[in-house]
Amino acid sequence: MRAPKAFFFDIFGTIVDWREGVAREARLVLHPLGHDMVWTAFADAWRGQYQAGMEEIRSGRAPFAKLDEVHRRNLERILGDFGLSDISGETKRALVLAWHKLDAWPDSARGIAMLRRRGFVAPVSNGNVSLMAALARRNGFHWDAILGAEFARDYKPKPDVYLSACAAFDLAPEDCMMVAAHSDDLAAAAACGLMTGFVARPNEKGLGRGESAPRIAVDVAGDDLVDLAEKLFG
Amino acid sequence: MRAPKAFFFDIFGTIVDWREGVAREARLVLHPLGHDMVWTAFADAWRGQYQAGMEEIRSGRAPFAKLDEVHRRNLERILGDFGLSDISGETKRALVLAWHKLDAWPDSARGIAMLRRRGFVAPVSNGNVSLMAALARRNGFHWDAILGAEFARDYKPKPDVYLSACAAFDLAPEDCMMVAAHSDDLAAAAACGLMTGFVARPNEKGLGRGESAPRIAVDVAGDDLVDLAEKLFG
Repeated sequence: MRAPKAFFFDIFGTIVDWREGVAREARLVLHPLGHDMVWTAFADAWRGQYQAGMEEIRSGRAPFAKLDEVHRRNLERILGDFGLSDISGETKRALVLAWHKLDAWPDSARGIAMLRRRGFVAPVSNGNVSLMAALARRNGFHWDAILGAEFARDYKPKPDVYLSACAAFDLAPEDCMMVAAHSDDLAAAAACGLMTGFVARPNEKGLGRGESAPRIAVDVAGDDLVDLAEKLFG
Repeated sequence: MRAPKAFFFDIFGTIVDWREGVAREARLVLHPLGHDMVWTAFADAWRGQYQAGMEEIRSGRAPFAKLDEVHRRNLERILGDFGLSDISGETKRALVLAWHKLDAWPDSARGIAMLRRRGFVAPVSNGNVSLMAALARRNGFHWDAILGAEFARDYKPKPDVYLSACAAFDLAPEDCMMVAAHSDDLAAAAACGLMTGFVARPNEKGLGRGESAPRIAVDVAGDDLVDLAEKLFG
């Protein structure tokens, strides 16, 4: 395997824990307003609309809109199921910003810093620039650039999202590695010619409900991001 | 004046010294091949093609191409004047990369870090992502994102380059400040509604051949970037 010159990162699930973070922030916004629910179920339901919301744009049925806007549209679809049909626009905006306040898995910042000593590092996420910048500030990530959906104006797993990231660093796909906790994301990157690095996040969607091992052949697999960096360069 | 929530930076001339850097790197590439010239004159001639090269794209006569490519095309226009008509493609590529190896003015990294404690910081330069990332690594800048021409797919002073940067951070132009050593850049940003911060770089184009004071009304003017940060927040 050649040494990657750039590392691209999936963010939601791979680098940050969206489920616990959205649950915590939703509770902070809604509980003082008298709402109560199983907060992780609310996070799961919201995330459950994720692919359908982006598919409107990937398919060309809707023009590009940044993920904050997709999150807002998806939120509308689940409000009724959680007794939230009458919340204000201000409350909805506060909920959308929950996604800007997610905490990283404990190894993420260190793993990103380790890989940054070996090549460029950038999120290639479906999250928008302001969301990625907020997560970086909150969790101490130092990215070389923020690439991904808003840069490409389309959503993963469309090829141009991966290929535009390689091109931004003047690199061939073969010199870049996509790092993700999701086999689907890695399969799409591999189809574009990128190397693949799998990170196990077995509890991403609740205890034991994440991927503990890749379902496809990958170039490297780590128990976490530090383990992946050590397997590559240790 | 309201406190800016994001600071956008011109890079060539404002943050880095393109003239001395291009002259030094051109000498490193060309002198071993037997070429000799006044190296700053070569840098000035290359930079002299800058606006014309971008105008092809701004006007819509040519599709968007990143600045590295514009630099390559502009280089072709001046080779004959410097006895370089027969240099190889590899040498041309090495020359284009001179722009990735520029040194910052002595106050730049500290000034950017000071402003980053007060808001988001990002280049809004005509330089492409890989070029901005290389300069950041070389000089120790920590950007929140790399915005500007390649993100907007057009060149300053077109309004969308400034407005797309504000939108990327979910901010109104009135909450953002453009920081530059060039009155033209600041005038274009102000026309889009941004606040303006002028930095004096009196020797940008050679001794006394830069702007020592703004030619337009600005919100703040500094003798250098640290002085500007101190005037805003000191």
